[in-house]
Amino acid sequence: EDRRKQQTVKSSDPYSTDPVRHPALHVNSLKPFNAEPPAEILSDNYITPSAIFFKRNHLPVPQVDPKAYQLHVEGLPGAEPLVLSLEELKTRFPKHTVTATLQCAGNRRSEMNKVKPVKGLNWGIAAISNATWSGAKLKDVLLAAGYRPELAQQACHVQFEGLDRDATGTTYGASIPLHKAVSDEGDVLLAYEMNGEDLPADHGYPVRVVVPGTVGARNVKWLGKIIVSEEESSSHWQQNDYKGFSPATDWDTVDFKSAPAIQELPIQSAITQPAEGATLDRRAEEVTVKGYAWSGGGREVVRVDVSLDGGQTWKVAQLQGGEKPQPGRAWAWKLWELTAPLPPATQELEIVCKAVDNSYNMQPDTVAPIWNLRGVLSNAWHRVKVTIREDEEE
Amino acid sequence: EDRRKQQTVKSSDPYSTDPVRHPALHVNSLKPFNAEPPAEILSDNYITPSAIFFKRNHLPVPQVDPKAYQLHVEGLPGAEPLVLSLEELKTRFPKHTVTATLQCAGNRRSEMNKVKPVKGLNWGIAAISNATWSGAKLKDVLLAAGYRPELAQQACHVQFEGLDRDATGTTYGASIPLHKAVSDEGDVLLAYEMNGEDLPADHGYPVRVVVPGTVGARNVKWLGKIIVSEEESSSHWQQNDYKGFSPATDWDTVDFKSAPAIQELPIQSAITQPAEGATLDRRAEEVTVKGYAWSGGGREVVRVDVSLDGGQTWKVAQLQGGEKPQPGRAWAWKLWELTAPLPPATQELEIVCKAVDNSYNMQPDTVAPIWNLRGVLSNAWHRVKVTIREDEEE
Ligand SMILES: [Mo]
Ligand SMILES: [Mo]
Repeated sequence: EDRRKQQTVKSSDPYSTDPVRHPALHVNSLKPFNAEPPAEILSDNYITPSAIFFKRNHLPVPQVDPKAYQLHVEGLPGAEPLVLSLEELKTRFPKHTVTATLQCAGNRRSEMNKVKPVKGLNWGIAAISNATWSGAKLKDVLLAAGYRPELAQQACHVQFEGLDRDATGTTYGASIPLHKAVSDEGDVLLAYEMNGEDLPADHGYPVRVVVPGTVGARNVKWLGKIIVSEEESSSHWQQNDYKGFSPATDWDTVDFKSAPAIQELPIQSAITQPAEGATLDRRAEEVTVKGYAWSGGGREVVRVDVSLDGGQTWKVAQLQGGEKPQPGRAWAWKLWELTAPLPPATQELEIVCKAVDNSYNMQPDTVAPIWNLRGVLSNAWHRVKVTIREDEEE
Repeated sequence: EDRRKQQTVKSSDPYSTDPVRHPALHVNSLKPFNAEPPAEILSDNYITPSAIFFKRNHLPVPQVDPKAYQLHVEGLPGAEPLVLSLEELKTRFPKHTVTATLQCAGNRRSEMNKVKPVKGLNWGIAAISNATWSGAKLKDVLLAAGYRPELAQQACHVQFEGLDRDATGTTYGASIPLHKAVSDEGDVLLAYEMNGEDLPADHGYPVRVVVPGTVGARNVKWLGKIIVSEEESSSHWQQNDYKGFSPATDWDTVDFKSAPAIQELPIQSAITQPAEGATLDRRAEEVTVKGYAWSGGGREVVRVDVSLDGGQTWKVAQLQGGEKPQPGRAWAWKLWELTAPLPPATQELEIVCKAVDNSYNMQPDTVAPIWNLRGVLSNAWHRVKVTIREDEEE
């Protein structure tokens, strides 16, 4: 009786079957689940452990039976739709492994919220993480489904539909340019492994898209269907969300058709240590600043500048990356570190970082001029204020 | 006698055979010749007339006999060097036409000079121009010379040598990544026409490289030799120039090996009208602001924001481009325009522009934090101060 009641309660809540999560995560929203790791531990690992990799769900986590799983590939003129089981996806196509950083479009939204309230989850600086993904190349699957290069003239987009759906049955959806999907150097994966293990439920089990260099929102999880099309995805998230606007645009004037859907993200960096408001000990004589830096589109971070005086003077941080990436395929972040003497005559430091990628794009200085009503693309210099405690000699 | 004397004088000056130039150009250096058009006329034409297209020469303009011209292609393992006459280049390979903007790495250097002196020509905002280029695809020529895709594993660079040389015989040289050179979508041309006519002498007659989306310095003029290599060009301009550094780096500390050679350029825009210091008439009631915007790497400019109050508030300008470019191949600039009411209670306006590309990269707010010892990559918001004249009623 009790048990039946509990099940009834549970079944009325589509989130009741969501997985258990790591307790260290900072939760921005429980249903759907959205959470980021504490920033201080983000830079402890070049490869983010899956358990603390930021979670960004739009809908309940779907329960997918791997034996019954089917991936549908449609929209290729003159070809029958292709249907693949999980086993077929794993065995019919070569397995590729790519280390790629994913970042939510809303990472660092909280800084925009301080300028003027925006609509969206109040992410800190840790809605970004780095993992190693393995799976089939999307290009190989599209070729098996009948894709031919001539098609690039008519079809321009590859749409993805998730198996996650809302109460009305609408699934999560997004699309990427066909150009990216079929490029040899695009490295778009239909991934079934994350960090050497089956994808965790929160990250798209059993199959997700990984679109290196591209905003998280296009990396569709719990992938159910791929549609090659002349049109972008008609989903809310492609058409009326995840776009950038001028600071002058408000909810009364916004025309979502006037801006392109976010795909590649701009240059980004942030300070993970010390934390905002931290107290440093003068006796330490120096401070170590740590953080991450990443750029979209496969552009490699080539330099991170750090200031201890609010941006008046700068020092160059040491970069810690993985292997040297191939040109145009720098999909993974770089962690960085700088140890510098504590400036003598001040008790307050404003620590600032800014990164540069190999197209020499730089971060903007301030938040207000890039403010936008959805609070996306928040990539101004990151600033952290800390205090120096002047202990008396004992 | 007089004539012979004159010739003797002339022959001692390697610049004596340089072509006649348009008198409207603002000359930054006569020998070698470096000049830009007046900014106000730059935005009059989407395609910049060749005569006022900015000129950036490193050395004297070489005199090349088109009948004797030879293009050498070397460095392909297992293949004989290929030698092409001008006629062969024009007839053996399909002719492709690309509209592409070229920008000098030093464009807008004068704004950096105001922060702290830098080394280099004091360019204003017009060391950038847009033209239509026609020629053979570099990829096609490399294939004819024996290039095979497998080679991409060992050779990584394509070097170019100009026929322009200094007193010691050293030629101008540069290189680009092989990846860009052989990409179908890279659109790298060995151009023999500019705006529908033979290349002018100042722009590389009879053949130059056009590397769309890439800094002017790699678009080698008067092309004599192409070398496929494991190494970048060993030239001064590739190794010890045209690189970006932190504002903290000075001539005592600079290590040119620590920074990558500039290839793709970052997002850029500037105001061509009104000019700095202009006086506007209050009776006009409104002001029209014009300018250009462009980004490297084939990224399309998607928005230009204009402020009349130094960056406090913004309006969105109207973009005027050519045809919609293919994804990743937006090689040409966009001109833009905004007409707005004159603000009532002020006699001084600080007009500011900033552009956004389709990777949502933005220009940095200020010059000092991107200052670098060579004064390259000057792409902060462009600012123009103007005065409003309050005429008495007549
Ligand atoms: Mo996102
Ligand atoms: Mo240049």
